[in-house]
Amino acid sequence: MKKSLQEYVDAFNAKDVDRLISLFADDAKVEDPVGKPAKVGRQEIESFYRESMPGSTLELLAPPRGSHSNAATITFAVHSQMGEHSIRIEVTDVMTFDSNGKIATMHAYWGPDDVQQL
Amino acid sequence: MKKSLQEYVDAFNAKDVDRLISLFADDAKVEDPVGKPAKVGRQEIESFYRESMPGSTLELLAPPRGSHSNAATITFAVHSQMGEHSIRIEVTDVMTFDSNGKIATMHAYWGPDDVQQL
Repeated sequence: MKKSLQEYVDAFNAKDVDRLISLFADDAKVEDPVGKPAKVGRQEIESFYRESMPGSTLELLAPPRGSHSNAATITFAVHSQMGEHSIRIEVTDVMTFDSNGKIATMHAYWGPDDVQQL
Repeated sequence: MKKSLQEYVDAFNAKDVDRLISLFADDAKVEDPVGKPAKVGRQEIESFYRESMPGSTLELLAPPRGSHSNAATITFAVHSQMGEHSIRIEVTDVMTFDSNGKIATMHAYWGPDDVQQL
């Protein structure tokens, strides 16, 4: 699970959507941010990453955490360039994995006040 | 929610169980670690902290994260002294809050390989 989460960060930063999407189960659910409607299934998730990837990089702030079940987490900052503005978003992702080692669910914890304009 | 999580860390490090327990709802559920049976209700949770607090301190590794709902997270290291051994555990906690601002659920993400003997 931790290898998969490191690969998630690396694929994101390589702007390689296919490599990133291959980590997810076909029927995965992505709730990013938690509290907003989830993206469900490979197509919706792929669209989401194709939109959010350009101009953004992830900086892992601590080693991934596991659990005593099928869940693991990463805590990171998103660095985004929006026009002339640099933005930093503080995030923790919780992923659960299916029996094939694919990401079944992703919950991204960040709120309005975790977004900072630099 | 973030204030409550900072208070959680401070009360833990002050070894003040009453102060820590006052952050929880009466019927709160604590799953620590995720994948093991939960502690349910104030009494079980209080016993859990009375056992785990002595000899342990929490080091916050990143600012608490919020969400667009009733959830927030903290990512930290637990530093524990067990006899002659120093132990470091890498943890991410996800808390949800009830309408009174009390912690309703806590999920602590850490696995066997997040425990390091120093």
